[in-house]
Amino acid sequence: MNTSMVRYIIGNILKIEAVFLLLPCVVAIFYKESQGWNYLLVAILSGLLGFLLSLKKPKNNIFYLKEGCITTALSWIILSLVGCIPLYITNEIPNLIDAFFEIVSGFTTTGATILSDVEALSHCSLFWRCFTHWIGGMGVLVFLLAIVPMNGGSHMNLMRAESPGPTVGKLVPKLKITARILYVIYFVLTVVEFILLLIAGTPVFDALCLSIGTAGTGGFAVKNTSVADYSSAVIWIVSIFMFLFGVNFNMYYLILYGKLKKALLMEEVRAYVLIVTASIIGITISILSLYPSLGEALMHAAFQVTSIISTTGFASADYEVWPGFAKSILVILTFIGACAGSTGGGIKISRILIAIKVFIKEITSYIHPKSIKKIQMEGKPLEDDVIRATSVYFLTFILIFVCSFLLVALENKDFTTTFTAIAATLNNVGPGLEMVGPTQNFGHFNWFSKLVMSFDMIAGRLELFPLLLLFTPAIWREHFSTRIAEKKKNKH
Amino acid sequence: MNTSMVRYIIGNILKIEAVFLLLPCVVAIFYKESQGWNYLLVAILSGLLGFLLSLKKPKNNIFYLKEGCITTALSWIILSLVGCIPLYITNEIPNLIDAFFEIVSGFTTTGATILSDVEALSHCSLFWRCFTHWIGGMGVLVFLLAIVPMNGGSHMNLMRAESPGPTVGKLVPKLKITARILYVIYFVLTVVEFILLLIAGTPVFDALCLSIGTAGTGGFAVKNTSVADYSSAVIWIVSIFMFLFGVNFNMYYLILYGKLKKALLMEEVRAYVLIVTASIIGITISILSLYPSLGEALMHAAFQVTSIISTTGFASADYEVWPGFAKSILVILTFIGACAGSTGGGIKISRILIAIKVFIKEITSYIHPKSIKKIQMEGKPLEDDVIRATSVYFLTFILIFVCSFLLVALENKDFTTTFTAIAATLNNVGPGLEMVGPTQNFGHFNWFSKLVMSFDMIAGRLELFPLLLLFTPAIWREHFSTRIAEKKKNKH
Repeated sequence: MNTSMVRYIIGNILKIEAVFLLLPCVVAIFYKESQGWNYLLVAILSGLLGFLLSLKKPKNNIFYLKEGCITTALSWIILSLVGCIPLYITNEIPNLIDAFFEIVSGFTTTGATILSDVEALSHCSLFWRCFTHWIGGMGVLVFLLAIVPMNGGSHMNLMRAESPGPTVGKLVPKLKITARILYVIYFVLTVVEFILLLIAGTPVFDALCLSIGTAGTGGFAVKNTSVADYSSAVIWIVSIFMFLFGVNFNMYYLILYGKLKKALLMEEVRAYVLIVTASIIGITISILSLYPSLGEALMHAAFQVTSIISTTGFASADYEVWPGFAKSILVILTFIGACAGSTGGGIKISRILIAIKVFIKEITSYIHPKSIKKIQMEGKPLEDDVIRATSVYFLTFILIFVCSFLLVALENKDFTTTFTAIAATLNNVGPGLEMVGPTQNFGHFNWFSKLVMSFDMIAGRLELFPLLLLFTPAIWREHFSTRIAEKKKNKH
Repeated sequence: MNTSMVRYIIGNILKIEAVFLLLPCVVAIFYKESQGWNYLLVAILSGLLGFLLSLKKPKNNIFYLKEGCITTALSWIILSLVGCIPLYITNEIPNLIDAFFEIVSGFTTTGATILSDVEALSHCSLFWRCFTHWIGGMGVLVFLLAIVPMNGGSHMNLMRAESPGPTVGKLVPKLKITARILYVIYFVLTVVEFILLLIAGTPVFDALCLSIGTAGTGGFAVKNTSVADYSSAVIWIVSIFMFLFGVNFNMYYLILYGKLKKALLMEEVRAYVLIVTASIIGITISILSLYPSLGEALMHAAFQVTSIISTTGFASADYEVWPGFAKSILVILTFIGACAGSTGGGIKISRILIAIKVFIKEITSYIHPKSIKKIQMEGKPLEDDVIRATSVYFLTFILIFVCSFLLVALENKDFTTTFTAIAATLNNVGPGLEMVGPTQNFGHFNWFSKLVMSFDMIAGRLELFPLLLLFTPAIWREHFSTRIAEKKKNKH
């Protein structure tokens, strides 16, 4: 393994995190909060460590997919470990595992919290929680690619490990430019939402946290009632932007470059719109009797559907009291998730589309055994490799789901709680049903379950394999045996 | 489509059902029950209809997989339609959809009942319910292949549509002999259980119904408490036989022909034993505090594990009151199911094994991208086609599960009830949790949900595709357009 390259990248990640950690300090200065010193301290330490690690440039910058995956997985764990320290040393989350869970939930844009009273947090900590969503939404390695000059042609392997979806969409031939375009779109959309929220009368701090939380499809709010206490206008704005951040960013790129027709024909986005519309209609009818007007029922249905399918996880109402049908739709949306190439999580619409097409092809093959039609996606025939990878993804997803479910079931909580807690963390959604419903939190789980779910959140965000690879003994056995062999060779 | 062949086979199926329907008549004579006349009437009508349908032998006996699937699916629906009439006209189940659900549940060896008081049924109806398990367990078309002389080489397509598992195991080159061997093993094992139950002091009628219900891995009991009121000896005997009927029958064949070592090395059976053992240990520890002794906890754990994994569905205790961990294991076992080539349902151990191996291969391919090792199963390399079919099976399973779940969720029952009801019917297990728990029944669902679950039971029993094919419009469009074209041609 190219360890010096891994070290170099992680060093750079820590430097970036140091810069990011200065932002809550600014918030602390503004609100005159003493907790800001803790953020400054961690920022300095992180920067120092990052500086030391990235001091020596690696000579060899060949980087295989294996190394890309491991670096990505390691980066996310280290990011979270460093990022949770301020919350711990300010004593706002006095338990280290709780703090780790909270920040993993932030970076992975899950939004599942262990706090029962978020309003008790300082402004700088509230901001930091939400800002981790923004960093994690587009991906910190994508950010690295966008700003740090790196040589060698193997960076695709980093991007591949962090980008959501069955295929990696390079928008332009040069990866660095792609990363920059993505971040510009991301930034502009966030700012637009922020301004709209201000116009709708939201306090500046709330508007800021809401817009970065929406952009990353995270779900941490600054109020105990999530977004339920804001005006209808705010709820509609957030709803629309949750929807927009769940769209494949390729579409915005196409629109930006005037290819409007091509953008509107994107199969995945059309399926996304269809699922969202059908779900909103279904839920509106289901909850109609619970609300005074059709408009209000529609608003809550639209909000909850966009919130869950984009895997954001804000709540405008306690959907725990909704009828079983409405809740069932939400549980299914938890698994479906957003488009590939968006900031959302879940299995992704494109994988669902591929699964349905594989199914239709199978049925057709019974009727016409000799037909050799290829499965088409976005107008192009799908590579067999993508189909195979999608199937493997589903199988792996089920395996991780079942194992996590069993481990968390050791706590003997009810079936719905355990099932939806795993679904909400592995798909990076946030809230589930029953004891992890929209008005509840994850604080009641024991430390073991919290670690399992932290694993699930990172696994879900990195599309399963990078994190699994990090925990595969074979990869380390091989790594160390190669190093020992090299050392022996050098001695001679 | 070769409709005359389809007609001929369905005619024969009806004749066989007529003979089977005479058995409850014998029971009725013995217990002097007037309901027996209804069974006789339906037997005569079924026989007559079967005779008429199979009068004209088809000239062309070429039979494609498509036709095999459709014939099988149709046969199972017709079997159930005819089989439910006696229950309806005796007024023991006064609603036709309820009666249909009950008998579909019988033939598919699910064992989910809509009755809250089974003890109110006549002996002949009790026997008929249990006997449908025995017929459905090994498969009625396999039975047909075993007894009716049929020509042509395409019968494999019938067997393939009805046999459980990713590959069809022909034990010997001649299919007819294979079918006979399977039925002989099945019959002998049933008789052995019957005798052992008699020795353990079970009343003859109960022993008979229990043994045919176990053999088919069905789950209909003759007592309202399932098997909870019988002695420990009976519970252990049933438990062991549920385990045995969940084993791949190839193993018995190998033992029968002296290949003991090969039999004991069967990978699927070893995995089955491993899962059963681990689950029993896990549940025993989990429920230990609920029972007076380790022995009793072990007995109930062993019984429930073998009952659920073999997809039988008997209950020796109300596991609804067990801790969440124990219940979670049972829910997972519901999906895993028994070995391929057994009478049990579920996804099947061999498919789970293939999924795990595909997963391991994927992880390995990240570490050694150039490795081209084939996945091995039972000592032989797995065909790519089997792997592909297994992946498609999982995807299709998920699609059917999600659609059924949504349709049944329209009733607004709680998440656990709806989820486990679909799991219990699609996997042919029987009981689930909450409102479909071991002491509850399926009577509270509306007619629409009952039809959805009937569909799921048949789809699950026939391994999804045959039934789906029957409901694919394209196949019928094509069929009728060909017929119209033929008629036009004849007119000229």
